[in-house]
Amino acid sequence: MATTGKQLFTTLEADGTLTVAIEDVAFPDPTGNQVLVKMEAAPINPSDLAILVGAADMETASYSAGKFIAKMPEPFNSGSKARHGLKLPAGNEGAGTVVATGDNDAAKALMGQRVSCVPGNAFSQYCIADATMCLPLGDHTAEDGASAFVNPMTALGFAENAKMDGQDAILHTVGASNLGQMLTRICQEDGIGLVNIVRKDSQVDLLNKLGSTHVVNSSQDDFSDQLRAAIDDTGAFYGFDPIGGGRSVDKVFKAMEQVAVSQMTEYSRYGSNQPKRMFIYGRLDTGATILSPSYGFGWTLSGWLLFPFLQSAGNDTVSRMRQRVRENLTTTFASHYKKRVNLDEMLTKEAVTDYRAMKTGEKYLVTPWS
Amino acid sequence: MATTGKQLFTTLEADGTLTVAIEDVAFPDPTGNQVLVKMEAAPINPSDLAILVGAADMETASYSAGKFIAKMPEPFNSGSKARHGLKLPAGNEGAGTVVATGDNDAAKALMGQRVSCVPGNAFSQYCIADATMCLPLGDHTAEDGASAFVNPMTALGFAENAKMDGQDAILHTVGASNLGQMLTRICQEDGIGLVNIVRKDSQVDLLNKLGSTHVVNSSQDDFSDQLRAAIDDTGAFYGFDPIGGGRSVDKVFKAMEQVAVSQMTEYSRYGSNQPKRMFIYGRLDTGATILSPSYGFGWTLSGWLLFPFLQSAGNDTVSRMRQRVRENLTTTFASHYKKRVNLDEMLTKEAVTDYRAMKTGEKYLVTPWS
Repeated sequence: MATTGKQLFTTLEADGTLTVAIEDVAFPDPTGNQVLVKMEAAPINPSDLAILVGAADMETASYSAGKFIAKMPEPFNSGSKARHGLKLPAGNEGAGTVVATGDNDAAKALMGQRVSCVPGNAFSQYCIADATMCLPLGDHTAEDGASAFVNPMTALGFAENAKMDGQDAILHTVGASNLGQMLTRICQEDGIGLVNIVRKDSQVDLLNKLGSTHVVNSSQDDFSDQLRAAIDDTGAFYGFDPIGGGRSVDKVFKAMEQVAVSQMTEYSRYGSNQPKRMFIYGRLDTGATILSPSYGFGWTLSGWLLFPFLQSAGNDTVSRMRQRVRENLTTTFASHYKKRVNLDEMLTKEAVTDYRAMKTGEKYLVTPWS
Repeated sequence: MATTGKQLFTTLEADGTLTVAIEDVAFPDPTGNQVLVKMEAAPINPSDLAILVGAADMETASYSAGKFIAKMPEPFNSGSKARHGLKLPAGNEGAGTVVATGDNDAAKALMGQRVSCVPGNAFSQYCIADATMCLPLGDHTAEDGASAFVNPMTALGFAENAKMDGQDAILHTVGASNLGQMLTRICQEDGIGLVNIVRKDSQVDLLNKLGSTHVVNSSQDDFSDQLRAAIDDTGAFYGFDPIGGGRSVDKVFKAMEQVAVSQMTEYSRYGSNQPKRMFIYGRLDTGATILSPSYGFGWTLSGWLLFPFLQSAGNDTVSRMRQRVRENLTTTFASHYKKRVNLDEMLTKEAVTDYRAMKTGEKYLVTPWS
């Protein structure tokens, strides 16, 4: 007998009409390695927002109970051609209680337990999840475990990636985010140097309190000097950026090269030989990335995504990372939320306007049964 | 007793005054592994132009015999701070006859021979060069051997780099250049797929005559369709770009991703899993590089320079590459020149205006004794 519940769907039509709505859905009985999770909490991550609202004009959207209809402007609508007409679930991760399982032992072992999971349709009252991707939460609350995957594994992934590449320092361009705070704690625990860039004095204070030794405030006049000094001090020629658009990465590459050139004893028209490496792992700014020709040819910029990284890292590394998350869920990997909304509330103009702004440290948590 | 001769120097002052002038110089006697080469021919490569004229305003420059004085505009002047006040030689490579040597056997063995060399001050009547970097030219003319290093080793470097990265196809955004023609012949010899982008019908013809199977003309209306078809056909998700500024790389990444997405069976908000890799190896366009957020996170863009690549490739690979260049100097690695100028003539307004335009296939050759 199928379980029924509410679930969010997002659909973009070829004409640019974006419909996001809560619908009643029948969830199939789990089979094999699957478990059925009654979802209790799911964060709205930046990676969810891309599919939830993207670049849609939410100011002129029409809102009704459990639904909004908005217009996706060009060139974003054409750029999303691959999803035209597809009714898509949303919500990467969340936490809840296993209420039914498939026949496999790994699935049956989770019956009745509270778990965090990565179902891809976490904005829902129920989800089918893979048992091997579930993290048993023990006595932790669903809110404790709601964000146990994307941010923790991404922050840990940065540290793992740096070690694989022989780096002992990292630069992070949005230091005060939930993820940035985790990265700060991870780097301390692992003895990795860290340059945190923030935009406000209050964020400097926040990170200083966490013990961050190199926090640079981009809104101050001597930002460039501060940044160069921090790079010089830590040797961080390797970093991660969730902004993507504009000159965020460009400024970092410039500062890195200036530090490297200041350490050279002889002039070279080609700039320094110091390799400079940055990764873009998000698109808080959906504009184009601008790279000026002012740091020679010794730089590499890549996109960075969690799942391909985990795949390349291999099972042993991933198991070790997950183990570490579980053991430090409410310390190293603690997340904070600005507000809790249920499925209907998350589609109101007030909520959408607030969470799509993606302000640092102002994350929303969806509680589908509240 | 020191040898004297004319040599070009380029000096940028802190106030943006760029002086390029021919001076009489005394060349020291070569020692150890050094040889003294009487230079007969040296190409003006794009990499030389950066230090020779850069972004200077050559229209309002003052020209006199064997000299010009120009103004370097901002932000380029500040960006060149590291060279302010330094009197720099120019000319990466060239060919001439060894007229004196140091005491080491490798040097003495070259006495009287015509060689190609990489002295860094090739715009000169004499150069001190390292014997191990000299390529004996046998019966070849100096013009045959003048460009035996930068372009041949760069084009070969692309093929070597592709093989190291497990690629069997390359995309090149300026297919009809001297270097592009070399790359076309190398890829044919090595069985590497090649997508050549050009801007004119005449360049399509030129490359077709060389046997290039995938030549795409960016000035045609269906350029994007052609480009996608060529990428689909060759599997070239890996390429090299000497333009740097603007949207040259962006258009390629877009086309690569569209091909990859068209091969997917299921929609993913993150785009395809196909890794896309581009290298910028020049700055024909000195504007900023623009990367639009339209090809997911599975891409990597790097600067590419010959010397760091050779260093990472190791001695065995470099020896093999140089051997191949020597054996195929007037076939695979043949260069063509639009015009020959002596040291004084290369600093006239007419010459500077023409060669700084860096038109495809219109390279200048400096012949210091003519």
